[in-house]
Amino acid sequence: MYNVIILSVLFLFSAHNVWAKMFDYNMERANLLAEESDLQVGGNLRLTDEENRANEILMHYKNEEVDESFHNPKHFNFSRHYFAYKNDIGNSKVYQIIRRMPKGAALHVHSSLMLSADRLLELTYEDHLYVCSADDNLKLHFSYSVPQRPCPFKWQLLSELRNSTENLQAFDDKLKSHFTMYSDDEKDYTGDINYVWKRFNKVAETINDLIAYRPAREKFFYEALREFYNDKVMYIEVRSGLKILYELNGTEYDRMYLPRLYHRVAKRFKEDYPDFIGIKLIVSKYRATGINQVLDTINIARRIKEELPDVFAGFDLVGQEDLGKPLLDFLPILSEAKKDMNFYFHGGETNWFGTVSDENLVDAILLGSKRIGHGYALIKHPSLMAAVRNRDIAIEVNVVSNVVLSLVCDVRNHPLATYLALGMPLVLSSDDPGAWGADPLSTDYYIAFVGVASKKADLRMLKQLVINSIRYSALDNKGKFDMIRQLHRQWNAFVRDIIRIFG
Amino acid sequence: MYNVIILSVLFLFSAHNVWAKMFDYNMERANLLAEESDLQVGGNLRLTDEENRANEILMHYKNEEVDESFHNPKHFNFSRHYFAYKNDIGNSKVYQIIRRMPKGAALHVHSSLMLSADRLLELTYEDHLYVCSADDNLKLHFSYSVPQRPCPFKWQLLSELRNSTENLQAFDDKLKSHFTMYSDDEKDYTGDINYVWKRFNKVAETINDLIAYRPAREKFFYEALREFYNDKVMYIEVRSGLKILYELNGTEYDRMYLPRLYHRVAKRFKEDYPDFIGIKLIVSKYRATGINQVLDTINIARRIKEELPDVFAGFDLVGQEDLGKPLLDFLPILSEAKKDMNFYFHGGETNWFGTVSDENLVDAILLGSKRIGHGYALIKHPSLMAAVRNRDIAIEVNVVSNVVLSLVCDVRNHPLATYLALGMPLVLSSDDPGAWGADPLSTDYYIAFVGVASKKADLRMLKQLVINSIRYSALDNKGKFDMIRQLHRQWNAFVRDIIRIFG
Repeated sequence: MYNVIILSVLFLFSAHNVWAKMFDYNMERANLLAEESDLQVGGNLRLTDEENRANEILMHYKNEEVDESFHNPKHFNFSRHYFAYKNDIGNSKVYQIIRRMPKGAALHVHSSLMLSADRLLELTYEDHLYVCSADDNLKLHFSYSVPQRPCPFKWQLLSELRNSTENLQAFDDKLKSHFTMYSDDEKDYTGDINYVWKRFNKVAETINDLIAYRPAREKFFYEALREFYNDKVMYIEVRSGLKILYELNGTEYDRMYLPRLYHRVAKRFKEDYPDFIGIKLIVSKYRATGINQVLDTINIARRIKEELPDVFAGFDLVGQEDLGKPLLDFLPILSEAKKDMNFYFHGGETNWFGTVSDENLVDAILLGSKRIGHGYALIKHPSLMAAVRNRDIAIEVNVVSNVVLSLVCDVRNHPLATYLALGMPLVLSSDDPGAWGADPLSTDYYIAFVGVASKKADLRMLKQLVINSIRYSALDNKGKFDMIRQLHRQWNAFVRDIIRIFG
Repeated sequence: MYNVIILSVLFLFSAHNVWAKMFDYNMERANLLAEESDLQVGGNLRLTDEENRANEILMHYKNEEVDESFHNPKHFNFSRHYFAYKNDIGNSKVYQIIRRMPKGAALHVHSSLMLSADRLLELTYEDHLYVCSADDNLKLHFSYSVPQRPCPFKWQLLSELRNSTENLQAFDDKLKSHFTMYSDDEKDYTGDINYVWKRFNKVAETINDLIAYRPAREKFFYEALREFYNDKVMYIEVRSGLKILYELNGTEYDRMYLPRLYHRVAKRFKEDYPDFIGIKLIVSKYRATGINQVLDTINIARRIKEELPDVFAGFDLVGQEDLGKPLLDFLPILSEAKKDMNFYFHGGETNWFGTVSDENLVDAILLGSKRIGHGYALIKHPSLMAAVRNRDIAIEVNVVSNVVLSLVCDVRNHPLATYLALGMPLVLSSDDPGAWGADPLSTDYYIAFVGVASKKADLRMLKQLVINSIRYSALDNKGKFDMIRQLHRQWNAFVRDIIRIFG
């Protein structure tokens, strides 16, 4: 604007044609860039004076961070794998600000991979935990007596092993390494996508072993909610495969038990932290399975919806999309289920183009999916992009997940950059933050904001993304309204904090 | 279409509502995908019966190649760095077909990096070549007597060194390694972007040393034309920085000499290969230089345009975009030059977003650039995308270059996928194929076709890209018309060849 005034003055006082031409050029240039600035996510938010002051502080640090790297790409973290710079993130002032930002909702997280490896390790200090360790594989089982599950070597009490170790730290570190994909050894994370997914599935299996024990699951979920809450997440939509839980004496619960447990723990958590809004459940089923198994899960979803209508959000199919079955394979039962429930389908979590994986996007859209998980491949499908925009279907983007699970390395190549620029309906989430040592939501926001979005993207983009997380949630209108009102208070405090602490 | 008929029949014979719904669903699904299929580059070309037969053969091999990898990403070459699979490409039937395809024009190549390392090595067998080798740096100079240029160690006659070596093969291999970035050692090519560009600039310097000698340059350019011709490229627009050439006795030519030499050699080549169309020159200047140096080059460009109007195409600024100066810095002289000449600017050859590098795209467009070199960052700029489409400015995409020069590793993340899907004005080129051992154009076509484009993209896309290379060239209308006519003949022979050889 200031530039425009100067140029106008120059124009008025100069009879020279060159100036007039330069004026036209600069006007056209400014208009093109302004058009893009308006179009982007958050582009038409107007900030208050106080927000503007906070924004200046935020952008000062962001520019410093980007400028430092612009001529020195060796140190531009976001061109490398997330694990290569994971431990440096804490030093960033932008990150420290984002940590404090109220984030509204996390809408794409898988329940059993919500919790950090450190907290998971604490759960291994519970009594009666047996371990079966063979060939770098770890099975875990809580039991009064030696578990009946097969073990290639032998089941041992973890407490006994731990007591007899000479180096407790090394023992616990080794144990913890089974709960995370994080590694400082590059060869662990630069393999092909199938290798990486195998590592991922192994971590998920070990964790699921640990938390299949009912009391462990209760502690696990309470701690997970606390980690999200501490990261300023007030509401979570949790995808869960409804695993079977058991007690020490071997009693097993049916698949309705876990949703009730989540409901109960979330209620208790809300009593302890009254400004926490709550959780909803997206029932999910492994996509590589048979049609009858999917139908069974849909039927359980119907029961949950009836018994816990406030908790139930909808249904999804999950797992490595390229190796799983496409939505099209389940079309008859999904078309039927559509009458009873909302869908939140994964779609296009793939690098392929013109295959059944990326064409899951068509079916997610046509089946009326309320949001689309990942939508990584959407950028290659202009008609589907238009449909997603017109139907206001939010894309749930999980940047760190897409790096760790081998879709992209330099995050500047992530399609999120274009989705942000186009002002697409969009929410940021974290998928499985516990599985790779990321914050519940801050890490994803930070990397998206500094690594993916335009250098010029500012507080307005962050604010819009937070608003989107509420807008595109499964909350009813009253729920959304209440949450926005609460966010408003938290946001104002956050803005004052930026000025007070970082100004 | 076949599916639609079956569904119609089912619809007519079934009174059941579910069938009707399924029919609607499948119609909508098919329509969405057909809309995308029509929109893509080549989407509204109609093939002849013969082309359809050839297309079936081509797609049989393409599908085989992609399907083989779909469930086995470890072996999907295009997810890895080009150097990791470079030597396997020859085995692909799709590649063998593309090798035979008439490719029309190569519109984005830098003159001194057009020729393969093998041919460059042959030039080192010329008499009177001195070498100065120190610290893995190589200087080369043709001279009757020891060159006067400084050398940290000492100038030696290459022929004497070669004659005294015990292992000629090892000697030549070592020498050749200075003419290419190709390496089978991963650490040579997985460094940060600045490291990679340093390696690239070193290769370019060594080659420029070798071909600054007038007779070497003549042979070099003739051989380069032959390599392009053998790769079925009939017309080339060559970017040249108009380096100074010299003779054995030390005589140096002025900067007008090189364009005359290119003109002369191309004319001779056309006499030897009458179906070769010819070359045009895009005068280029290093973008990290001063305004006066750029102005000097623009003035030489004006002289070339006057003296060799058929050869002169236009002007460009080149070099690593992030470290160079933006177009905006040269605005006054470029606005002036615009009256005299066409621009073919590099723009957005960067992973950055919201910086001076990607915003070069704005100025390339507003300065009326006829085409845009790379345009890698364009995908993040919706208003500029629209402008490029509306003004029909072709993007010159060089996929292999973008891999080697560290913009992207898994080419499925290359924005070309989206440009193709959107039917953007687009040409494929190869930038500096000699510097990384790629074919003049086939490698780029092959990787774009199998690695980047939709699995479903077929002969129509290839044909449209070839047509585009003529349509967006600097040829006048008559030149384009003649070339299209010639292409038509070659294309028909190619189509028959596919059926005859690969059917």
